Amino acid sequence: MTRSLGVCYYPEHWPETQWPEDAARMAASGLTWVRIGEFAWSRLEPAPGKLDFDWLDRAIDVLGRAGLKVVLGTPTATPPRWMLDRHPDMLAVDAAGRPRKFGSRRHYCFSHRGYLAECKRIVALLAERYGANPHVAAWQTDNEYGCHDTILSYSDAARAAFRDWLAQRYQSPDALNRAWGNVFWSMEYSGFDQIDLPNLTVTEANPAHVMDFRRFASDQVVAFNRAQVDILRRYTRAPVAHNYMGRITEFDHYAVGADLDIASWDSYPIGFLSDRLEATDAHKADFLRQGDPDFQAFHHDLYRAVGRGRWWVMEQQPGPVNWAPYNPAPLPGMVRLWTWEAFAHGAEAVLYFRWRQAPFGQEQMHAGLLRPDSEPAPGLAEVETVARELADAPMAQAAPADVALVFDYASAWAWDTQPQGADFDYFRLCFAWYRALRRMGLNIDIISPDTDDLSQWKLVLAPGLFTLPDTLRAALPSCSGAVVFGPRANSRRPDFSIPPDLGPSLPGLDARVARVESLPPGSALPLANGGQFVHWAEELEGKAVVVLLREDNRAAMVRAGGLYYLGGWPSDATLFSILSDLCAAQGIATRDLPSALRTRSDGKSRFWFNHGASALEWEGLHLPPASMLRVPA
Amino acid sequence: MTRSLGVCYYPEHWPETQWPEDAARMAASGLTWVRIGEFAWSRLEPAPGKLDFDWLDRAIDVLGRAGLKVVLGTPTATPPRWMLDRHPDMLAVDAAGRPRKFGSRRHYCFSHRGYLAECKRIVALLAERYGANPHVAAWQTDNEYGCHDTILSYSDAARAAFRDWLAQRYQSPDALNRAWGNVFWSMEYSGFDQIDLPNLTVTEANPAHVMDFRRFASDQVVAFNRAQVDILRRYTRAPVAHNYMGRITEFDHYAVGADLDIASWDSYPIGFLSDRLEATDAHKADFLRQGDPDFQAFHHDLYRAVGRGRWWVMEQQPGPVNWAPYNPAPLPGMVRLWTWEAFAHGAEAVLYFRWRQAPFGQEQMHAGLLRPDSEPAPGLAEVETVARELADAPMAQAAPADVALVFDYASAWAWDTQPQGADFDYFRLCFAWYRALRRMGLNIDIISPDTDDLSQWKLVLAPGLFTLPDTLRAALPSCSGAVVFGPRANSRRPDFSIPPDLGPSLPGLDARVARVESLPPGSALPLANGGQFVHWAEELEGKAVVVLLREDNRAAMVRAGGLYYLGGWPSDATLFSILSDLCAAQGIATRDLPSALRTRSDGKSRFWFNHGASALEWEGLHLPPASMLRVPA
Amino acid sequence: MTRSLGVCYYPEHWPETQWPEDAARMAASGLTWVRIGEFAWSRLEPAPGKLDFDWLDRAIDVLGRAGLKVVLGTPTATPPRWMLDRHPDMLAVDAAGRPRKFGSRRHYCFSHRGYLAECKRIVALLAERYGANPHVAAWQTDNEYGCHDTILSYSDAARAAFRDWLAQRYQSPDALNRAWGNVFWSMEYSGFDQIDLPNLTVTEANPAHVMDFRRFASDQVVAFNRAQVDILRRYTRAPVAHNYMGRITEFDHYAVGADLDIASWDSYPIGFLSDRLEATDAHKADFLRQGDPDFQAFHHDLYRAVGRGRWWVMEQQPGPVNWAPYNPAPLPGMVRLWTWEAFAHGAEAVLYFRWRQAPFGQEQMHAGLLRPDSEPAPGLAEVETVARELADAPMAQAAPADVALVFDYASAWAWDTQPQGADFDYFRLCFAWYRALRRMGLNIDIISPDTDDLSQWKLVLAPGLFTLPDTLRAALPSCSGAVVFGPRANSRRPDFSIPPDLGPSLPGLDARVARVESLPPGSALPLANGGQFVHWAEELEGKAVVVLLREDNRAAMVRAGGLYYLGGWPSDATLFSILSDLCAAQGIATRDLPSALRTRSDGKSRFWFNHGASALEWEGLHLPPASMLRVPA
Ligand SMILES: [Zn+2]
Ligand SMILES: [Zn+2]
Ligand SMILES: [Zn+2]
Repeated sequence: MTRSLGVCYYPEHWPETQWPEDAARMAASGLTWVRIGEFAWSRLEPAPGKLDFDWLDRAIDVLGRAGLKVVLGTPTATPPRWMLDRHPDMLAVDAAGRPRKFGSRRHYCFSHRGYLAECKRIVALLAERYGANPHVAAWQTDNEYGCHDTILSYSDAARAAFRDWLAQRYQSPDALNRAWGNVFWSMEYSGFDQIDLPNLTVTEANPAHVMDFRRFASDQVVAFNRAQVDILRRYTRAPVAHNYMGRITEFDHYAVGADLDIASWDSYPIGFLSDRLEATDAHKADFLRQGDPDFQAFHHDLYRAVGRGRWWVMEQQPGPVNWAPYNPAPLPGMVRLWTWEAFAHGAEAVLYFRWRQAPFGQEQMHAGLLRPDSEPAPGLAEVETVARELADAPMAQAAPADVALVFDYASAWAWDTQPQGADFDYFRLCFAWYRALRRMGLNIDIISPDTDDLSQWKLVLAPGLFTLPDTLRAALPSCSGAVVFGPRANSRRPDFSIPPDLGPSLPGLDARVARVESLPPGSALPLANGGQFVHWAEELEGKAVVVLLREDNRAAMVRAGGLYYLGGWPSDATLFSILSDLCAAQGIATRDLPSALRTRSDGKSRFWFNHGASALEWEGLHLPPASMLRVPA
Repeated sequence: MTRSLGVCYYPEHWPETQWPEDAARMAASGLTWVRIGEFAWSRLEPAPGKLDFDWLDRAIDVLGRAGLKVVLGTPTATPPRWMLDRHPDMLAVDAAGRPRKFGSRRHYCFSHRGYLAECKRIVALLAERYGANPHVAAWQTDNEYGCHDTILSYSDAARAAFRDWLAQRYQSPDALNRAWGNVFWSMEYSGFDQIDLPNLTVTEANPAHVMDFRRFASDQVVAFNRAQVDILRRYTRAPVAHNYMGRITEFDHYAVGADLDIASWDSYPIGFLSDRLEATDAHKADFLRQGDPDFQAFHHDLYRAVGRGRWWVMEQQPGPVNWAPYNPAPLPGMVRLWTWEAFAHGAEAVLYFRWRQAPFGQEQMHAGLLRPDSEPAPGLAEVETVARELADAPMAQAAPADVALVFDYASAWAWDTQPQGADFDYFRLCFAWYRALRRMGLNIDIISPDTDDLSQWKLVLAPGLFTLPDTLRAALPSCSGAVVFGPRANSRRPDFSIPPDLGPSLPGLDARVARVESLPPGSALPLANGGQFVHWAEELEGKAVVVLLREDNRAAMVRAGGLYYLGGWPSDATLFSILSDLCAAQGIATRDLPSALRTRSDGKSRFWFNHGASALEWEGLHLPPASMLRVPA
Repeated sequence: MTRSLGVCYYPEHWPETQWPEDAARMAASGLTWVRIGEFAWSRLEPAPGKLDFDWLDRAIDVLGRAGLKVVLGTPTATPPRWMLDRHPDMLAVDAAGRPRKFGSRRHYCFSHRGYLAECKRIVALLAERYGANPHVAAWQTDNEYGCHDTILSYSDAARAAFRDWLAQRYQSPDALNRAWGNVFWSMEYSGFDQIDLPNLTVTEANPAHVMDFRRFASDQVVAFNRAQVDILRRYTRAPVAHNYMGRITEFDHYAVGADLDIASWDSYPIGFLSDRLEATDAHKADFLRQGDPDFQAFHHDLYRAVGRGRWWVMEQQPGPVNWAPYNPAPLPGMVRLWTWEAFAHGAEAVLYFRWRQAPFGQEQMHAGLLRPDSEPAPGLAEVETVARELADAPMAQAAPADVALVFDYASAWAWDTQPQGADFDYFRLCFAWYRALRRMGLNIDIISPDTDDLSQWKLVLAPGLFTLPDTLRAALPSCSGAVVFGPRANSRRPDFSIPPDLGPSLPGLDARVARVESLPPGSALPLANGGQFVHWAEELEGKAVVVLLREDNRAAMVRAGGLYYLGGWPSDATLFSILSDLCAAQGIATRDLPSALRTRSDGKSRFWFNHGASALEWEGLHLPPASMLRVPA
């Protein structure tokens, strides 16, 4: 597999006379890909039906002739202002009942049929015109589904669509009443038209109601995306991608990804550290100009699964951004490090966002590879270094991993609906497990809960899995090593009810969760070996073999053969210890890396990443601050 | 008086075939009472006018034949979905102007006439059918008035009713203008129809306006409840109760209680510690699995007053709940302790919430006495222990108290309307005084501000009493000991204006509050004896005898005979010292208990409660963790 | 110039029989001015068109005959309730889309044409009747523009007016699209009627859009005020003032002030310390009963500029207020100190708010010079002291200052629109610079960004100036000393775009801001000399002389002749050091005052102010706590 670099570009922002020079500089910098078009609807169709594609023809031509391959985006994330005159009710509505107005982007409700039809029309026009264009080598649908909290809409359109969705799913109000347990608090419905969206209720809505709304909302994204893909397929053989974001869990990325050829994501390590990661102040200070050492890797591994092996970074942070609460500049070396880390995790391409910093608009403070005055920004030299290094590097190959971590979007919805403890968050739970594995220096695969064959991994981990799908249940025996379920795993049936046997109901494992506790910050439940549970602890009963005890002599972890159940949320140190032992038992060699050091192997090479601001010595290697070192595996 | 136990049960949640076994197990566990029906409207009347009471007949029969006495709840806290089609404007509206939608419970505005009529209709049907049923031994109106912040509604119905209420009260807009001081900021009205609810004003509304809205809102609850009671009385001689909540001050419980036979409340010690009590993190950590040692006792004593001696715990926490930010499990022993503490304070009955944990709905994570799989939850064994202990215990009798604390709902509204210092809260103030008395090991009576005879107490305390009612003023001489008024007492006239002599205007006490200060956290005003005022300090003038000085030589506390006025909010230690001295002066023997130890005597027995997680030795007694010990008084 | 004292009075709040005694006491206390009328519309016009000015005639007569001079306020900050029946859409609308209702004050949208017409009508009636009244010696328009966040309204009236304003400014949608960069995210408009107010957008609105809305909103205030002034001028020769507030930056006070004769402001030192100043808890505790030592001085100097030399304190805090989160009482001496500080900064008059504490209404807990029972409040004696001291004091004269600080309202809007770092605030930045200069014991002038002659200052400072106006650019050579621009200065063009050369684009200074960083609390960027930047740091390039280095050897401050650019936000200590050095270089003698000590000279006298709670010795002077000492300059 070839590794390549690219950049996001907005020809419509610049005078046409500048395009050739820009294109030439891109190519000279070692870039292969250029993504364009995804916000250009007002220039492609300045008035309803008044199309102007000529400029795009010319832009693609200029870029293509410079040797660049174009990723063409559908412009549906930014409908022009005239769209509102045609569809005044197309706006999403927030949970407080307020329409989310025009004036930025993503101002549409996924459930609005009229807007969907407009999207299909513009996509068809673009696909027809460029589907066979030799320079258009890939497509992107829309942009960053879910960004700015745009999945959950409480609009009239959403309400009507939700009712339809429920009618399809349940066929009768009585079936729905039974599934949701609506006898509770007299919440029974006699018709689907009585069912409202679960916002602004007096106290919390029925979790079953909320969960179905979350499923519905995810399905709407899948359908919206599929409508575009279906059209593109008719006109092009180029691969189709979407650019996901970091820690967006409001829709099922696997389901969207199933309709696409490539998963890609937009990686902003420094912004994400600041605005979407639980961490101590000390940790955030240590990695202020580097971003978290595991957050990007997690998403690389996640989107490799979503893309069924094919994945890109569609937008890579190249310098300070504009949108985080604070926006420091990356340490010198980090742009190179981030890029190589993506490649080490199997990325086919890394594109930087964006070519030249725009002097206007909402992102005028977002760095590009060029400054607004067209001078090189500091990131550009690092990009050019990577381009040179790529030329010498061995071809990438699929990297083996001994360990797999199940990541499930429905579980995120479930525990968001019913956290039971205010700080119980599914992503946070999985990320803690992932970080512990990374600290051991392991290659990790993230896998879907619908995986039907576990034979390639020695250790499969599934903390917090809302329900155990039949497929995965059937696949459990295929794992030659151990499968470890964690707290809350299979504690609910799909209708959100507690299973008659209380869960986790794992095959051959005689263990029930008799009772659970959520614990506030500062409280912990001690284990017999000196470790502790935080956030969450369960009282287990049953005859399964106890492999870990709590200080109160209850079981903390039990097993039956290679099947484990861990009944609590271990502190980071405790988790490291537990997972290290499990690895050792499976013959998986582990390390104990310093907090800033991470590694990955692709079988041919081993990559070392020093995310720290200080140099490190490790296994005879010298790693300067913010550096990557590649050695034979 | 007999003490008895019971449980809350939802036959409509379970197959009818399971009822007999459930009933038998309840009886076998030593339970006497079973509360049912209060959320069952959608099963009693699945469609408008389509009644189905047969299942309830059978449920009452099954329970009754098992020897249980039924408390039958009116189902008006959960109107069915069809009610909204009949009365689309029945929903309450929040302070931001948003209707509070169907999908949970308490989705009604107390001022909606149409919904009130529906409630009267269903209550009449229930009363007619079950009023003379031999198994129905008590009734409950609605459920937890005020829970989920449902007293203050800003709906059209509320606005119309408020205007009527004002017209009745003031008779003319000019009278209202004068009473409210509407000449201030040109707020004068020329008609009652011009008066809006006091939400969403540019800056704060006139406190007199807000205070009347608070009075009106309380009156609406009283009227709503009375409408049900009036109907029940026509059909039944069984006592009628309502189940109040913890720290709900939005309506006058004394006024609601005056129409009822029994006051009851829903006691969730661990949840309340977490979500409705000001305390340090250390205190909350110390009592994480026990709840606050004084919070339940305060409400026991309060609702004993509201019930004019007759009171129950209608819902007792039996294990972890679902609704607090964090939900740990009670220490072993706490369910027994809580139950006995209620009895020690005079409860006639304690009912647990609920029999079996429901596997569905909003409260699926709320423990019951049984788990969802019908196995006993840990609380059940403690309940059975209490049942056995009750059999051996002497009959309860009314317990004497030397000290009374006045608790007044109007004062809560007043200082909520005008805190003057951001952390001035009337409940908090009274609770601090109550806790100091509890730490002294005293029996305490909480009394209404309308008490007309103080002769039974040696010490009567009234901190923060908004206005001094004429009745209480007339009763002051009846107290043989001391009456102590605290900060802000009688500092306003009923129309919220400052009295011409500035207050407290106490008979025979020459003292005026010349000026007040509110103090931020971390600031304190030192007293001459080493103590300090926090939150609030007043500058007193007048010729009354000074009994406590501030460091600046101003009076901190003054007296005239047995009448005292304390011009500040003492720190906890200072308050303990002041009240200890006052007790000593009145010949009231006090203790200085450790923070986890509490006691109460009913004249015949002395009960000791160790709320701590460690054992205690005290007065020759050994108290294990989370334990109750009963000794002869 | 004569210095005088006065008070705010509400004759409509008190029985007419009390007026003569009140007036006599005012005069006897040494007061000269009495402000009345500004909230009395409901008494002047109880019903539409039904006028009653007789009581006001009599009040003015009583006050005037007592020897007092009247400041008459137009009553437009409190339209009566009937106004809403005439103009139901006159209310402002908040950013969440909710009308801000009647029931307090300032319940109007500045853009409502109908309400503006009503204001012009009532002002004309007042002006006609009292314009030549010999007792009416000054006028005040409205009251505290901007208080309670009332400048930005999202009403229909505001939307319509904004569209007109934009049409005037840009003439064509295309011009607007180009200026705003609306090609970004397809935000282009084809007509002004498509443009909405920039609230409730999905994510942030275009900063250019927001900035124009901020300019528009400020212009609406200027126009509203001018409409009143134009009418007053036709009938009176008395000076016209408005009373501004502390730290209100939502409108351009210079522009409003240009239409007025006198600037005045409402000075509440203790309330402001608590509710609108960034400071450590320790600082707030140190000055709990004194207010911040520099906050009032800043506004004195600011409003001296706004009033072009003529300014008053229209409302001076005389004791505890009601509206801050906590409301402690001033230390004895502070009322005198605050008054003298105003005079030392050039105030012509200081009026206290208010004469007698009102026992009713929203401000019933706001101290006056009299208590509600008409007894003197503690502040009154200090006022009388000042009155006596004034008689002996030399006449005031204009005070020279060596240093000027540019303060620009548009910069406040700009960085509020685009902070880039969550705690970047323009007022905070300027105030930090101001405080450093005060700590040096300097007289400071605050000047408008439109100043056209800098020759009177040796040092002119302009941190954070959004754009450099042509006038100021042209005036730079007029400064004989140094002009220092600070972080973000001239970093934008007026249309909010980044300048092609990146800024600061200062004449003769070869320096560009290559990149900026915002830093979270706790992070700092070290300088070579041991100092540090906090909040904000810039990477400078160019050939300008480097006068200060960062630890990473980049330039921190550069110069060309007397023109400096400082590329970061220094910590307080670093800023003191930098500005001290700059003063020294310009031959300006500085001190290093303790945190509680401040001083100002008016050329004839030097005033020393000890804001601390402890006595101070300084330069041979003994300064008791909370004291002012005047010595010959
Ligand atoms: Zn992006
Ligand atoms: Zn309850
Ligand atoms: Zn004011």
